[in-house]
Amino acid sequence: MNRRSIVALSGGIGAARFLNGLVRVVPPERLLIVGNTGDDTEQHGLHVSPDLDTVTYTLAGMSDPVRGWGIKDETFQCLESLRRFGSPSWFRLGDRDLATHLYRTERLAAGATLAEVTTEIAAALKVRAKVVPMTNDKVRTRIVTPSGELEFQTYFVRRRARDKVLEVRFEGASGAMPAPGVISAIQRARAIIVCPSNPFISIGPILSVAEMREALRLRRERVIAISPIVGGRALKGPAAKMMRSLRMRSSAADVAKLYRDFVGVFVVDLIDRDEARAVEALGIRAIVTNTVMSGPRERLHLARTVIRAMGMKE
Amino acid sequence: MNRRSIVALSGGIGAARFLNGLVRVVPPERLLIVGNTGDDTEQHGLHVSPDLDTVTYTLAGMSDPVRGWGIKDETFQCLESLRRFGSPSWFRLGDRDLATHLYRTERLAAGATLAEVTTEIAAALKVRAKVVPMTNDKVRTRIVTPSGELEFQTYFVRRRARDKVLEVRFEGASGAMPAPGVISAIQRARAIIVCPSNPFISIGPILSVAEMREALRLRRERVIAISPIVGGRALKGPAAKMMRSLRMRSSAADVAKLYRDFVGVFVVDLIDRDEARAVEALGIRAIVTNTVMSGPRERLHLARTVIRAMGMKE
Repeated sequence: MNRRSIVALSGGIGAARFLNGLVRVVPPERLLIVGNTGDDTEQHGLHVSPDLDTVTYTLAGMSDPVRGWGIKDETFQCLESLRRFGSPSWFRLGDRDLATHLYRTERLAAGATLAEVTTEIAAALKVRAKVVPMTNDKVRTRIVTPSGELEFQTYFVRRRARDKVLEVRFEGASGAMPAPGVISAIQRARAIIVCPSNPFISIGPILSVAEMREALRLRRERVIAISPIVGGRALKGPAAKMMRSLRMRSSAADVAKLYRDFVGVFVVDLIDRDEARAVEALGIRAIVTNTVMSGPRERLHLARTVIRAMGMKE
Repeated sequence: MNRRSIVALSGGIGAARFLNGLVRVVPPERLLIVGNTGDDTEQHGLHVSPDLDTVTYTLAGMSDPVRGWGIKDETFQCLESLRRFGSPSWFRLGDRDLATHLYRTERLAAGATLAEVTTEIAAALKVRAKVVPMTNDKVRTRIVTPSGELEFQTYFVRRRARDKVLEVRFEGASGAMPAPGVISAIQRARAIIVCPSNPFISIGPILSVAEMREALRLRRERVIAISPIVGGRALKGPAAKMMRSLRMRSSAADVAKLYRDFVGVFVVDLIDRDEARAVEALGIRAIVTNTVMSGPRERLHLARTVIRAMGMKE
C-alpha cells in the first residue's frame, strides 16, 4: 500500500482540528495534506501562508487553542514596534510566528519552491504528516464586494468578513499547476478527505487549480467530504453568510451540491439528519454523525467515522 | 547659518555615546550624522544596518545601556524560533529590533534609498538630528585574516574579532557615491567631527567612498577627530588589536597619523598628554582632555570641548 494513502484537502482552523484527530487514528505518515494557499499574503515583505501554518502548528501541538490561529503563548513585540513606523498592524503576526515567515521568505528568495519550504517547516516542527501547498504557483483569492474587489486578508482579517460577497475570484488559478505529487497521490489514494472547511475560500481555491477537480472527479467514489455547515451555520468563519449572499441556502445539502461532481460520500451532522435524503438525491452517500469537534473525544470520533466510511482500518 | 552646520562621521557604540552628549550641547537640528554602512549585513533576508541603528536607537533613548547595541528590555522570541529551522542565531536580532529591519527591507524593496529609509526611521523614533548612511550604494567591509577573507559580521560578531587582521577591504567602495547632501554639508559645515570610532572598520569605510576624503581634505581646518585610542587601548572594540596586527603602534598619535591629510584638530585623552607633541608634529592641533565617557557628565564635557575647540557656541 502506498505510504501516503490518505489525501486531505485543507483550509485553516476547522480542517486543522479535524486533522489533529485524524493523525491519532491513522499513522500520520500515511497522510498527505494539501493546503489552501489562496489566502497567502505578503505582510511587511514576508510571505505568509496562513492555512499551511495553521495546519502545521496544530499538528505540531504549538497552536493557540483558543484563537485557533497562531502560536500559543505568543508575544507581539515586533508588531507593536512596526506601528511606530506607520506599518499596518491589523494582521497579527507574533514574534515566534515571524520566524516561520522569515524562514519561508528567505528560502523562496533563494529559489526553493513553496512545497519544499512547507515540507522543511513541517519537518523542523516534527510534524510527521506531509503538508504541501495546493500549488507552488501564485494563486490569490479575491473577494468582490459591493464596495469593490478586496485582497483576501483585507476582506477577512482587516474588515472582519463583514462585506457582502458578490463573487469569489482566484487570481492566477488558470495558469497554476498542482504541487508535485498531489495529482498522483489523488490517483492512488484509498481516501481523499475534503476537510470541514469553507467551500468558497478554503476548498474553492484548491479546486481552482488546473487538473485538481478533474483528478478528484476520476476518484469520486474515494472522495469523502465533511460538511462545514451544521444546523445552517458555519462551524467557523463566514461560510454560511457567504452562501446566503451568493443566493444559496446555507445548508449541508447545498455544500454537497457544490461538490456533487467529485464527492462520493458526504458527512452531515446529527442535527442535519433531515438533509441526508437531499444529499443522497445528488447521488452522494450520506453519513450522519456528530461533526461538532468540541473536544479531543469528538475529534477522534469524527476521524474514526471518516476512516471507517472509506472501508479503511485504523 | 546653514541648518545642518555640524557634520559627524560615525561608527557604532562609541560614536553613539559621544553624539548623545553632543545633542545636549548643540541643537540636534544642526547635526548631520553620516553613518558607516560597511558593516551592513543581510540576516534572514533582512537588511540590517548596525551602526545606523545604534546611533538612531541611542539618540532615541531606546538603546540598551549595558550592551550598547540593540534595544533595551528586548526579547528574542523570533530568533529562538528561527533556531528550530536551523537558521543561524549568532547575530542577535531582538523582536523589537526586527521591526526596524522589516521596515527597512520592505521600503528598500519598494525602491526607497537607504538614506530615505534611515531618515524615516529616525523621524519615526523622534530623533531630531539627521542620520544618513555614508552612501546609498552597497559597500561591504571584508576582513582578510590568515584563515581567509571574512564577511565583516562573521569576523566581528560570529568569531568575536579574534582573528588576526591582515587587511581591511571595502567591497564596492570604488563605485559608491556619497549619500545625497553629504558632500555639500561637508563643504558648508562649521565643524566636521570624526567620532571616537574604529579608524579601520568604522571611519575607514566612510573614507573609502568616492569624493569623501577629498571633500574632507578641502575642509581640513574645520575637521576635528576624537581619538578612539586611550592609553594604548580602544575604548570599545578591536581597534588597538587591529593596529598592532597591521604593524602600527596602538597609540592616539598613530590614529592622528592615519587622519593627517584631512584632520586639523585632534582630541587626545589626558592619559595621552605625552602624545600631543607627536600629533602637533603632524601639523594637527592637539587638544588634551578627558575623553573617557564613563557617564552623562563626561559625555557633555567632551562634546563641549569639541564645540569650543571649533570656535562654536553651545
